[in-house]
Amino acid sequence: MTKDPLVIFTPSGKRGRFPVGTPVLTAARQLGVDLDSVCGGRGICSKCQVTPSYGEFPKHGVHVEADALSDWNSVEERYDQKRGLPKGRRLGCQALIQRDVVIDVPAESQVHKQVVRKRAEVRDIVLNPAVKLFYVEVTEPDMHDPSGDLERLEIALKKEWGINGLQVDIHLLPELQGTLRKGNWAVTAAIHQVGDSAPHLLRLWPGLYEGSIFGIATDLGSTTIASHLCDLQTGEVIASSGTMNPQIRYGEDLMSRVSYAMMNEGGAQEMTHAVREGMNSLFDELAQEAGIDKAAILDSVFVMNPVMHHLFLGIDPYELGQAPFALATSSALALRTSDLGLNLHPSTRAYILPCIAGHVGADAAAVTLSEAPDKSEDLVLVVDVGTNAEIQLGNRDRLLACSSPTGPAFEGAQISAGQRAAPGAIERVEIDPETKEPRFRVIGSDLWSDEDGFEAAIATTGITGICGSGIIEAIAEMRMAGIVDASGLIGSAEQVGSTRCIPDGRTQAYILWEGRDDSPQITVTNPDIRAIQMAKAALYAGARLLMDKLDTDQVDRVVLAGAFGAHISPKHAMVLGMIPDCPLEKVTSAGNAAGTGARIALLNTTTRAEIEATVKRIEKVETAIEPRFQEHFVNASALPNAAEPFTLLREIVPLPDVSFNTGGEGAGSARRRRRRG
Amino acid sequence: MTKDPLVIFTPSGKRGRFPVGTPVLTAARQLGVDLDSVCGGRGICSKCQVTPSYGEFPKHGVHVEADALSDWNSVEERYDQKRGLPKGRRLGCQALIQRDVVIDVPAESQVHKQVVRKRAEVRDIVLNPAVKLFYVEVTEPDMHDPSGDLERLEIALKKEWGINGLQVDIHLLPELQGTLRKGNWAVTAAIHQVGDSAPHLLRLWPGLYEGSIFGIATDLGSTTIASHLCDLQTGEVIASSGTMNPQIRYGEDLMSRVSYAMMNEGGAQEMTHAVREGMNSLFDELAQEAGIDKAAILDSVFVMNPVMHHLFLGIDPYELGQAPFALATSSALALRTSDLGLNLHPSTRAYILPCIAGHVGADAAAVTLSEAPDKSEDLVLVVDVGTNAEIQLGNRDRLLACSSPTGPAFEGAQISAGQRAAPGAIERVEIDPETKEPRFRVIGSDLWSDEDGFEAAIATTGITGICGSGIIEAIAEMRMAGIVDASGLIGSAEQVGSTRCIPDGRTQAYILWEGRDDSPQITVTNPDIRAIQMAKAALYAGARLLMDKLDTDQVDRVVLAGAFGAHISPKHAMVLGMIPDCPLEKVTSAGNAAGTGARIALLNTTTRAEIEATVKRIEKVETAIEPRFQEHFVNASALPNAAEPFTLLREIVPLPDVSFNTGGEGAGSARRRRRRG
Repeated sequence: MTKDPLVIFTPSGKRGRFPVGTPVLTAARQLGVDLDSVCGGRGICSKCQVTPSYGEFPKHGVHVEADALSDWNSVEERYDQKRGLPKGRRLGCQALIQRDVVIDVPAESQVHKQVVRKRAEVRDIVLNPAVKLFYVEVTEPDMHDPSGDLERLEIALKKEWGINGLQVDIHLLPELQGTLRKGNWAVTAAIHQVGDSAPHLLRLWPGLYEGSIFGIATDLGSTTIASHLCDLQTGEVIASSGTMNPQIRYGEDLMSRVSYAMMNEGGAQEMTHAVREGMNSLFDELAQEAGIDKAAILDSVFVMNPVMHHLFLGIDPYELGQAPFALATSSALALRTSDLGLNLHPSTRAYILPCIAGHVGADAAAVTLSEAPDKSEDLVLVVDVGTNAEIQLGNRDRLLACSSPTGPAFEGAQISAGQRAAPGAIERVEIDPETKEPRFRVIGSDLWSDEDGFEAAIATTGITGICGSGIIEAIAEMRMAGIVDASGLIGSAEQVGSTRCIPDGRTQAYILWEGRDDSPQITVTNPDIRAIQMAKAALYAGARLLMDKLDTDQVDRVVLAGAFGAHISPKHAMVLGMIPDCPLEKVTSAGNAAGTGARIALLNTTTRAEIEATVKRIEKVETAIEPRFQEHFVNASALPNAAEPFTLLREIVPLPDVSFNTGGEGAGSARRRRRRG
Repeated sequence: MTKDPLVIFTPSGKRGRFPVGTPVLTAARQLGVDLDSVCGGRGICSKCQVTPSYGEFPKHGVHVEADALSDWNSVEERYDQKRGLPKGRRLGCQALIQRDVVIDVPAESQVHKQVVRKRAEVRDIVLNPAVKLFYVEVTEPDMHDPSGDLERLEIALKKEWGINGLQVDIHLLPELQGTLRKGNWAVTAAIHQVGDSAPHLLRLWPGLYEGSIFGIATDLGSTTIASHLCDLQTGEVIASSGTMNPQIRYGEDLMSRVSYAMMNEGGAQEMTHAVREGMNSLFDELAQEAGIDKAAILDSVFVMNPVMHHLFLGIDPYELGQAPFALATSSALALRTSDLGLNLHPSTRAYILPCIAGHVGADAAAVTLSEAPDKSEDLVLVVDVGTNAEIQLGNRDRLLACSSPTGPAFEGAQISAGQRAAPGAIERVEIDPETKEPRFRVIGSDLWSDEDGFEAAIATTGITGICGSGIIEAIAEMRMAGIVDASGLIGSAEQVGSTRCIPDGRTQAYILWEGRDDSPQITVTNPDIRAIQMAKAALYAGARLLMDKLDTDQVDRVVLAGAFGAHISPKHAMVLGMIPDCPLEKVTSAGNAAGTGARIALLNTTTRAEIEATVKRIEKVETAIEPRFQEHFVNASALPNAAEPFTLLREIVPLPDVSFNTGGEGAGSARRRRRRG
């Protein structure tokens, strides 16, 4: 008896023997090979393209003859004429197995394809979207056996695709009969299903729908709303855009928005309306930029901090403004975008990641998903720096999280010459330790201020102020150059030996930019340093508190998330004692990790249950009630720290042991605790 | 060792031994005795009232001492002072078992109490509503273990009431935190759950909610909308009301509404809007009449024919107007009333019974639920007479259903002197077989036209026309008196021997009411008889077709449902051959069985799965494609029938063997099939 032909699929390596005449798609399905098909093997969707390989395959122990598959057939012929089948490709549902064969499934024919992320240290995203397309042929109505059109559609989806217990929104019913008849009883259904939840029909197109379906991942920040529009079939980001959060007009920081809701009748509703409208405009813009039909956007994921979470959901954030900071709900939410006042297709689904605690929101959960500290072998500190810093510390054994009220100083607020990161803002600073002379770079130009052509390069933007990363570098450079002492005091011209130090009220200021006719002088003042000291002390104290809980003085690596984290220089951050001492090369930036986490939850729904479970096991630490927080905060007011040695840092940078305290204002003033916001 | 005390509950007879000091409620729960409690045994809801019995109980073999239960305690004292505890009653959660005892659970303390129906032949309704109340005490937020308020509510509901996987609509979130705090962390939750489906939180009240919750059962007819407002905790109907279906302005019958939708762009939407608005007004009226808060209406059930079903759901009924009469969906629908444009509380649920076939709707399914032919031991024919007649025939082994296009003649339309059943309409008729003289009764008076005082009694209403039941009786009486022959022809004055027979075009008419100055003459014309012949032939042919399918010539009983069925005289209906021959006492009226079915589905949710399963196994017969339907129709055009013997009928009424056919128009003209509507 001759054996059935052997079929080997690559790259999976799955293999099996099948009777002569078996379609490649059938063999793939039986072996559990990830080969896409929307039309169910009817030769019309072309999703099941495969590439047979011929010749000798010693590794697999087979020889593949030229006639291993059936000849190119009329369906493939027609498809090739109409759309073009790439050279060497076959339609898996048409090519029949004749002899032993090796078949490659190209990435674009895989349902669960890998979506590559830019950075090497994080795992790729495996595509497994909540919404998928299914083509079916539906039985026509029969008076001898009356049943509803919907019921026959359900039977077809069950029979052909194993979809059981389909749920259908009432708003789809009016178009159902027309679509079935227009498609001559063949339709493409977009079906939403996450895990074992009930499948929901979202849209129905007549015949084979050859367009794409999309999803939006949004990081709803207090300041900006940033969205990625993704193709749910390829995982690609096809457009990204951001907009200011329109709630800014009710208050720059979160606490002032909570106050606005408290002080103004209907204030919370106003802010809910504003953020939803802002998002509607953003989504319109994204769809337009990508040139897609907005009605093909069928899924969405949102992440945000707790106050934004409540305001977006229409919940008054009152309780978040006072102890015990109780969230109305902390669980992940699966909704319709219409529930959120968003003008997308009425079927479009929304998923909001779970909040971790009253100050640690769905955005922090998204950072966890993106940076996966819970899967890390070494002990990693993940810091998302914003108005509040969300801090996570842990590894695959334990993960802790807290929030610390850094305030807006890191964003350039509360700094005398501070401004948002925009053209004209000083973003990088170096100070010569001998001459105490600075040089800097300004957003909009790659040239340093002492390089040729700098004047010309900044002619249009001017030099308008210092942004968050600029002030960090300026103060850290001042500390390394001996212009500022460990307590944060700026020395006088005599103490420092530079005329750039000038009196400024009862303290001193350092002239970073002497100014011109058209641009004012820019100085770093002692109050500026105080503001940064308080912000960074809060950040460090939070991190240190988590280290206490894990009974450690050392972290293996540090990940800086958030836009600010992307621009900050690890060395300068460490000179300020923002983050614990560790090898500089172990400090990396994750960019908008919250946005990436949202995108992961959008593209791979298995991560939703995963992050929900992870959030449950995260150990939440509330800094406000931890006695040691105050102690860590006071120690961390010093530059870099009054209690921690920062041994690794001292090996690579000078930290002159100067002191400019003459009995006047000292570091102790940083003890004033700041309210959250 | 002494045995634990024996506790016997009546009326269930459940018994068990429990340690001294066990609360009666705890014992009841452990034995599965149906004893209500909203507060979970905290002595505040008073739902668990029981009546202990004392003395000798030879039947149970126990003697109950006066001290069988613990003394009346302070909670009972307080409750009695505040609200009054009926004499002999105890609170089941407070009274502790001390010695052997017999405890009666009064009907009002049972969750699944019986709701008595008026007629004896149908089973009572066991109360098991979709929405129930649960009182819980929720843990306060704790910064050491942060979690959302909702999550702690879920935990409380799970722990105290075993409610798992609670779903919460987003619109409830904004009020959640305020309600919990207002109730000092005690709340009453209204939770919707049907069978094993996920429980949904519908409303939340601070503390113990002592009000009632309600549901509405609606029969949405082509002509009228009739609703019952029911208390979901007692099962009582607290208000009933009806209104004209505002769609009447788009067409009296269904077919003309389907046409309106076809001929007018947006016509279907207009009619959807009209019926929803009509229902909104009706619900406002019901709530006002009952003096209840509309926001306490939390569940609703709707039944209607397929065209109304589609129009109510916002689906164009186009496909129902032509073969193969495909429904968009035939399944039962579980929705929110907000999906249906109804202005009830946003959480309020709606359940629509399944449709049986393209012409046999959710109203017919409700009739099945109410009249239970599928549970009948004898073979029962259930006929719901409206513009279409829905016909069901079967017993517990098999159940068949069909629809037959009777047209509106039974409602007085297409009758020369026809009118709706309203004051002034002739509703009962008797004709003396000797003198051929009629006497009649008019709606608004109990007197016959030949009785003293009749003139005075009808002075205000006048005699305005004949309603549906009146025309049936008139024609049947004319047939029995020999004024009309079996073919439906009225004899001339000479043939009949009465001057009440007068020429009317090419045929004759019979003067029922000679008229006065202020009221016109009322005659029964031959075209009137033709209209009734066609209607009744359609009805009978449908019934006969189902009898063929069951291979029987005989039904055991007939149930006439619908408002028309309530007024019709079984004898006269049978003289006309509307229904198959059977003993007259076996013909009963079920009133608005569709409305009753809706009420059953509202009050007892276990019947929802039951009717869904029953509808699936009903054998649907489409009269339009049954070859024998035409043959039965033609035979049934005769009075009573050209082919069936009607032996039982002939034993009790005279059916003179007259014939007035002189070669002119005959019964054959009834062969013109009428379109549906």
